[in-house]
Amino acid sequence: MNSWKDLQDILLKFRNERNWEQFHNPKDLALALSIEVAELNELFLWKKPEEADVEKVKDELADVFAYAILLAEKYDLDINEIVKTKVAKNAEKYPVDKAKGTSKKYTEL
Amino acid sequence: MNSWKDLQDILLKFRNERNWEQFHNPKDLALALSIEVAELNELFLWKKPEEADVEKVKDELADVFAYAILLAEKYDLDINEIVKTKVAKNAEKYPVDKAKGTSKKYTEL
Amino acid sequence: MNSWKDLQDILLKFRNERNWEQFHNPKDLALALSIEVAELNELFLWKKPEEADVEKVKDELADVFAYAILLAEKYDLDINEIVKTKVAKNAEKYPVDKAKGTSKKYTEL
Amino acid sequence: MNSWKDLQDILLKFRNERNWEQFHNPKDLALALSIEVAELNELFLWKKPEEADVEKVKDELADVFAYAILLAEKYDLDINEIVKTKVAKNAEKYPVDKAKGTSKKYTEL
Repeated sequence: MNSWKDLQDILLKFRNERNWEQFHNPKDLALALSIEVAELNELFLWKKPEEADVEKVKDELADVFAYAILLAEKYDLDINEIVKTKVAKNAEKYPVDKAKGTSKKYTEL
Repeated sequence: MNSWKDLQDILLKFRNERNWEQFHNPKDLALALSIEVAELNELFLWKKPEEADVEKVKDELADVFAYAILLAEKYDLDINEIVKTKVAKNAEKYPVDKAKGTSKKYTEL
Repeated sequence: MNSWKDLQDILLKFRNERNWEQFHNPKDLALALSIEVAELNELFLWKKPEEADVEKVKDELADVFAYAILLAEKYDLDINEIVKTKVAKNAEKYPVDKAKGTSKKYTEL
Repeated sequence: MNSWKDLQDILLKFRNERNWEQFHNPKDLALALSIEVAELNELFLWKKPEEADVEKVKDELADVFAYAILLAEKYDLDINEIVKTKVAKNAEKYPVDKAKGTSKKYTEL
């Protein structure tokens, strides 16, 4: 199974067993997410892209998913739906004929 | 379906149609992730937790998932597996009897 | 004395004694800055604004200044000049009569 | 003059004219700082270190200094003092003979 619903259930159980719901307002969850992302980025600091320690990447990326999934739950969001909707929007902002092979931001295309 | 694989396929197709794989090394993907997380956090800036615009949260959180999923793909990681493994580690760092009802970091428990 | 130059000299001496200039390209300095800012933000996580540990704030904010000053040096920027120039730009984006007492972004004023 | 006191005065005047002190609690100032740092980092995204647009770096780095200086003011911190104190601490964590020429974190030296 590769469902994020499974993960959401596991994460909510972990949280509820510790009575942490009281701390998990959306603003602090987003802040927690930013801190985990920084820890992930630290694995690449002063290094070439291929030099990060993969075992540590697993740990930090897992924390990123954990907080992102908990934040989605706060708003009762369907993760597959919001990502698909956003990809469709991005396809309009970055049409293939203009965006192909360039890393420019859509505002500069 | 709520599968990560579905989203990963959609994101890879979007990326490949634009020849963006050349830019998507893990270091820059992690950096892109940090930028999207900041855009998400900006929705809460100067506000109470409940005041963020939910429609914008959907958009920014979707971008967060998109880059996190693409980064997982770079290392061929099974998202459900890494999150479950990390939750198990966290359960050891934050045992229920010590962590219940407190927001302290494990180093201070 | 409250001069940036004094701090810049101290930081460059510290860096050069360790032969770290080789790692300090602007992209990684900006990344290091983002990591220090996350460590600063972590002091506020799950807390009310007034609950952060001031001694830790000093340490983390010092690291933020250190990398910001080193980055300014990379481009040979005059810190007072760039801040003054930016404040002047912001005064145009946020005219007093429109911005007074509101936390709205300039795009929404 | 290269004093950060000068900048602090300018920034406080700008803030007070707009009645923004009510929004500027330390937690949100730290959050604002993280958002500006992300905008700075975005200038390097998908690029080589030397490819960032210097004019934009000036603008974003100025915003970083602005929020860092405002945060220092909240705690009535002497910026030169906290940076010098931190450099002294870092000199202990990273002694020259161990740290010379390596980018390893002090926990790995």
